[in-house]
Amino acid sequence: MESQQQGQLIIIGGAEDTTGECQILREFVRRSGGIKARIVVMTAASSIPEEVGQEYIEIFERLGATNVQVIDTRSNEDANTLELLRAVAQATGIFFTGGDQARIIRSIKGTILEDALHKRYAEGAIIAGTSAGAAVMPDTMIVEGESDTNPRMDAVEMGPGMGFLPNVVVDQHFAQRGRLGRLLSAMLQKPKVLGFGIDENTAIIVNGNEIEVLGEGAVTVVDESGVTYNNLDRVLQDEPVAVFGVKLHILPEGHWFDLATRQPIAGKL
Amino acid sequence: MESQQQGQLIIIGGAEDTTGECQILREFVRRSGGIKARIVVMTAASSIPEEVGQEYIEIFERLGATNVQVIDTRSNEDANTLELLRAVAQATGIFFTGGDQARIIRSIKGTILEDALHKRYAEGAIIAGTSAGAAVMPDTMIVEGESDTNPRMDAVEMGPGMGFLPNVVVDQHFAQRGRLGRLLSAMLQKPKVLGFGIDENTAIIVNGNEIEVLGEGAVTVVDESGVTYNNLDRVLQDEPVAVFGVKLHILPEGHWFDLATRQPIAGKL
Repeated sequence: MESQQQGQLIIIGGAEDTTGECQILREFVRRSGGIKARIVVMTAASSIPEEVGQEYIEIFERLGATNVQVIDTRSNEDANTLELLRAVAQATGIFFTGGDQARIIRSIKGTILEDALHKRYAEGAIIAGTSAGAAVMPDTMIVEGESDTNPRMDAVEMGPGMGFLPNVVVDQHFAQRGRLGRLLSAMLQKPKVLGFGIDENTAIIVNGNEIEVLGEGAVTVVDESGVTYNNLDRVLQDEPVAVFGVKLHILPEGHWFDLATRQPIAGKL
Repeated sequence: MESQQQGQLIIIGGAEDTTGECQILREFVRRSGGIKARIVVMTAASSIPEEVGQEYIEIFERLGATNVQVIDTRSNEDANTLELLRAVAQATGIFFTGGDQARIIRSIKGTILEDALHKRYAEGAIIAGTSAGAAVMPDTMIVEGESDTNPRMDAVEMGPGMGFLPNVVVDQHFAQRGRLGRLLSAMLQKPKVLGFGIDENTAIIVNGNEIEVLGEGAVTVVDESGVTYNNLDRVLQDEPVAVFGVKLHILPEGHWFDLATRQPIAGKL
């Protein structure tokens, strides 16, 4: 049962525009409260957190947000300081940068900071993430995997995500890196979930069961609920997998998807 | 109405094994008559036809075929010599090499050689093609296009193919080059067709309505017959296309597809 107050997720397929119109980041700041937004930038994924943090501070300030703070967690200890918890508790928008998704999980999963993030999301904050920051949104994520491959069980390594969006798998840089096989491989390891393959400079905005697409490319929704056959009972991990009856929806900006009915909805654009 | 005698097609996604077990080329030679096969290698697609022709002569001879001949057509005139027509009329296996599919069409389409190829196919010959040689098999082909893109009308240029396999679009190097968007873009320009995305070192063998998969990767069958919505009535050519309800089947070696019923069939492997 979701409360009315639950926040929204903005899940970005990486390489979002940061120098031009900044459509997606602009929407993040707007929904976070516009120039009154209180934004924290989570650099946990990045191996160069100071640099990346500074970059996003400049972008968000250029868009008009005046209250922007970086949270740079490199270990579980970093994630449990009172100062950070206070910043999260007051944030209206929380932004996870790109990098390596495993670093986010290593430094934040299981900490009081994780609880604070979930609490803040339940209270209505906007949680956004790009690239690695997008991958961690579901309860199960692709830790790493091969691009440009047909589906194989060993093509991806799965692990726990941050759990803001249960029962889906998210993949990013989707068309740009040829990741259909990678996403199908991930979904085979977690049946009944939906897959969202998000292109670069493209995002889904999740508001309860409503998902809206924004940006330059498209979102490929993969639904395996109608699959009539697979060979998972006999295939070995390095062999190509058979799957019959996968359903696919290609949704560019302005189109919607309903998580409750699993149906795409045409926009009026 | 197909005659009983019609031949078979072996459509290869490029980069087939030519140095090891040569599973796919071996099957081509076997079905063409084994060591008694009379093979012609069509190098029209290649910009280095002597080199490519010599390579395939060596491969097919290594596999035991003793009667192998190269047909090197660079223009329409080349394609109308009596010697070539005689070679085709006697061939049991005809192999189109890779290169640029437009070169095949330029030198062969509309010539007496084209008629001779179709006649020989109708009489039972095996017609095989790899990469560019695979692309030309349908009546409409992808002349060129972008890999790693979401579907857009301007992502591909379509043109007439050799017409051995009507009502389908074939794409090659499929998983390796991330060509889902490219194949969908092609199919949008030719509705009601089936799409076959063939991985490298992987092939479909077409025998009447029966299609069998062979090789290392998988074949992605894309069926748009159940599409419930697209935005082709309003999208411009450089904008991302919306498509809802595409059906997808991933078929590795040993699995089948029935062109008559449009249904995949699980193999016994």
